Amino acid sequence: MTDPTAPSARTRIRRTPANAHYDAATVHAIVDDAYVCQVAFTDDEGGVHCIPTVCWRDGEHLVIHGSNGSRLVKRLAGGAPACVTITHVDGLVLARSAFSHSMNYRSVVIYGQFERVDDADKAAQLDRFMDHVAPGRRAEARPGDASELAATTLLKLSLHEAAAKIRRGGPTDDEPDLALPVWAGVVPIARVFGAPVADAGVACDVPAYVRALVTGS
Amino acid sequence: MTDPTAPSARTRIRRTPANAHYDAATVHAIVDDAYVCQVAFTDDEGGVHCIPTVCWRDGEHLVIHGSNGSRLVKRLAGGAPACVTITHVDGLVLARSAFSHSMNYRSVVIYGQFERVDDADKAAQLDRFMDHVAPGRRAEARPGDASELAATTLLKLSLHEAAAKIRRGGPTDDEPDLALPVWAGVVPIARVFGAPVADAGVACDVPAYVRALVTGS
Repeated sequence: MTDPTAPSARTRIRRTPANAHYDAATVHAIVDDAYVCQVAFTDDEGGVHCIPTVCWRDGEHLVIHGSNGSRLVKRLAGGAPACVTITHVDGLVLARSAFSHSMNYRSVVIYGQFERVDDADKAAQLDRFMDHVAPGRRAEARPGDASELAATTLLKLSLHEAAAKIRRGGPTDDEPDLALPVWAGVVPIARVFGAPVADAGVACDVPAYVRALVTGS
Repeated sequence: MTDPTAPSARTRIRRTPANAHYDAATVHAIVDDAYVCQVAFTDDEGGVHCIPTVCWRDGEHLVIHGSNGSRLVKRLAGGAPACVTITHVDGLVLARSAFSHSMNYRSVVIYGQFERVDDADKAAQLDRFMDHVAPGRRAEARPGDASELAATTLLKLSLHEAAAKIRRGGPTDDEPDLALPVWAGVVPIARVFGAPVADAGVACDVPAYVRALVTGS
């Protein structure tokens, strides 16, 4: 729910509810920081599956894509209920007691049913994906042609029924443990971009928008 | 399946099967590089859920833990079929055509039913978790006491029915696109550990095993 006062029955976080967030800005920021989400769904026999796939955001929707014939696409386009999860691990939390060890993280769990993106909107959505991966890229890469677009299904999921959970900060040892002579604190974890590796045969320089990715990391 | 010649019906990868791996060494390496997995399962009404949680490996099993009373623990300990997914994003693959853009990644999807870890094995399993987070840590942190161990359920899932999928290397543009005057290549993505942040009141130095984490990144 994007209304912070009203999570749904299935998004209400019961474990460490102080770490829960239901507002759109928090959910959007976690989605925007992801290249990949995990999509859980069931098959006709009730078996559960969880498949990682590339994702991006368009306003109030998470968007994914896949080959028309894939099970994931066929199942989700057919209206199967889905649960999509994104997790970013931000740090190791080393407490004085083993039991109080933890991780810092940002996660979001989204419930709903995907809808097909209309054919007329496909090209614009794939532009969004390119902007998500490398802003500036779509001015240079060859755009998808009609047959490429036709082979791909785009699916979008409303972000309205979503719950974010975030842990930040240091360890929370129990009072009696605070005097233990043990180092305690956080080892931050970050995602960094390495030096670009040009494909064979590339004669042009690394574009500024790629250099910016690396510098900005 | 750890037998590379025999994935099960539900682990056989049909999309880009050349990227599939079913051998134990590949599956284990992807699990060992993860702090968190996503656990998908269904509830009594058939609704699907996908919850991120800390994980580690013990031989041929993935291990997770949780509060005794959590829905995740109750459901999985009750034998609910699960699908566990781990995804590492290793790079942005920028192709000459929009359609050929991709990601480099390592993922694993594991099917099965969790089993409870016996009470007698809990302490040793939590030691494994500590070793996974920071080798050396468990010699210093206060071990879990009886009430802490009693409040936690540990669950393990066999890694035998698992499929890994890995993409590495540069873009694979179609032949006619190779002559386009567009930079193409890979922007590698890596996880790095930042400088440790000591908790308030910590008087001792950063231990060598924590410094090694940062140096080794």
